[in-house]
Amino acid sequence: MIPDTLSPGQYDTVYNFLSLVIAAQLFTAVFLLISLPRILPRYRAAITVAIVVCGIAAYHYFRIFDSFKAAFVTEAAGGQGDYAQAAGVGFNEGYRYVDWLLTVPLLLVELIAVLALARSVQTRLLRGLVPAAALMIILGYPGEISGDNGVRGLFGLLSTIPFLYILYVLFVQLSKSLDRQPASVRATLGRLRYLLLLSWGVYPIAYLLPLLNIAGSDAWVYKQVGYSVADILAKAVYALIIFQVARMKSFNDDPTFAAIELSRDEEPARS
Amino acid sequence: MIPDTLSPGQYDTVYNFLSLVIAAQLFTAVFLLISLPRILPRYRAAITVAIVVCGIAAYHYFRIFDSFKAAFVTEAAGGQGDYAQAAGVGFNEGYRYVDWLLTVPLLLVELIAVLALARSVQTRLLRGLVPAAALMIILGYPGEISGDNGVRGLFGLLSTIPFLYILYVLFVQLSKSLDRQPASVRATLGRLRYLLLLSWGVYPIAYLLPLLNIAGSDAWVYKQVGYSVADILAKAVYALIIFQVARMKSFNDDPTFAAIELSRDEEPARS
Repeated sequence: MIPDTLSPGQYDTVYNFLSLVIAAQLFTAVFLLISLPRILPRYRAAITVAIVVCGIAAYHYFRIFDSFKAAFVTEAAGGQGDYAQAAGVGFNEGYRYVDWLLTVPLLLVELIAVLALARSVQTRLLRGLVPAAALMIILGYPGEISGDNGVRGLFGLLSTIPFLYILYVLFVQLSKSLDRQPASVRATLGRLRYLLLLSWGVYPIAYLLPLLNIAGSDAWVYKQVGYSVADILAKAVYALIIFQVARMKSFNDDPTFAAIELSRDEEPARS
Repeated sequence: MIPDTLSPGQYDTVYNFLSLVIAAQLFTAVFLLISLPRILPRYRAAITVAIVVCGIAAYHYFRIFDSFKAAFVTEAAGGQGDYAQAAGVGFNEGYRYVDWLLTVPLLLVELIAVLALARSVQTRLLRGLVPAAALMIILGYPGEISGDNGVRGLFGLLSTIPFLYILYVLFVQLSKSLDRQPASVRATLGRLRYLLLLSWGVYPIAYLLPLLNIAGSDAWVYKQVGYSVADILAKAVYALIIFQVARMKSFNDDPTFAAIELSRDEEPARS
């Protein structure tokens, strides 16, 4: 539940984290957009999806940020007093779900696209992963907006089924394809899967906080901070690792491209 | 009719769907803009039109979203109480018609442009389709803003005439041209016509809700959700399928381009 009041410190913490997410997502998207020519065309689809994911997340955090600013106000001069919920507007938790409905399937598309598998394998994997990701988010929503812990637990459980299926595809089905990736990128791709597991794991924990009877304004602030950090890891940091994979694979595929790109990094020879 | 009050759940549903449309249109436009070099120049006119259509729709949904937020307010703290129509501002349904007047003719231009037909055939088709699309929207408007069911029915009927003409051109006249498209894209183009029929079919149903005496706040919320989903299908999803067609045709037209873009499909041979 959204707390009735926040202390100035709590208010500032949420405010600063929400703003941090906007900066992280927006400028990861800008960085990747400028960096597109630094990878081969065959990997640009993956990075284009990454740019779109970070852009969508930045858009939604602008909305979440505005919703937060409108939802809590203080009567005291200079923002020294507690913040209370404003009349006429509520903080809209639903935005996060709208964001995830669009971005979570796309995060899996990013991962599969950068692997550059045979088209038939790629299509088969995505036909399982994308609907599972959408279903996971859709099933979480009724639990999130419900005040009833039973409903929250039930939908949390239902939403875990597609999540487990996604983990099965990524950690079992995908392992064979990973073995065929160039040796230089295999370790990075392994780390990427664990980053996905770690950052996606934050969401169910935050979701379950009310079931553990951890309530009150502190729990709510922790939840906002947790979601914010998880969104930075799962989208911006994840996108940067995908870019690194795309660049390593570009060098591996095309030595001429590698020579041109890498010679740039050296000091020009003085004669 | 616009309802006098909305429950918090109804308010949030409309709010989240309107925001979803903004994100979907805006980032489809961004995705297509970044992806323009991934198709041959001859198909870029079609995708440029698609970018403009999604951009126009995003702009209008920003307006619709703001109009909605201003039109409904709640007295209760934290947005926990019912929302009532605010004094001094009304929700402006008319925006949708301004959007459609610009975008619906352009959606047909997109479709014809990606086919890359002989110039004379293209001109002949568009001379029929574009005025018919504009006429369809213009004739619907007096019925939409009228409180009278007779007027609504009459203009709904008049607006159906150009709609049927458009369907005739797409499903009868165009069929000959589709047979000359590469085999790989024929199925996708067929699906695209059905997506158009399906998503455009939502609008007359929503338009006729008042005639069926389905009124009240639930009907209005369903109408907003229906229009939102239909706009995502008819513009963003439609544009992505047009892009897919353009990409398949690019590969079909130019094997060298396909090799650069697609060599990713083969695992590099290890020696």
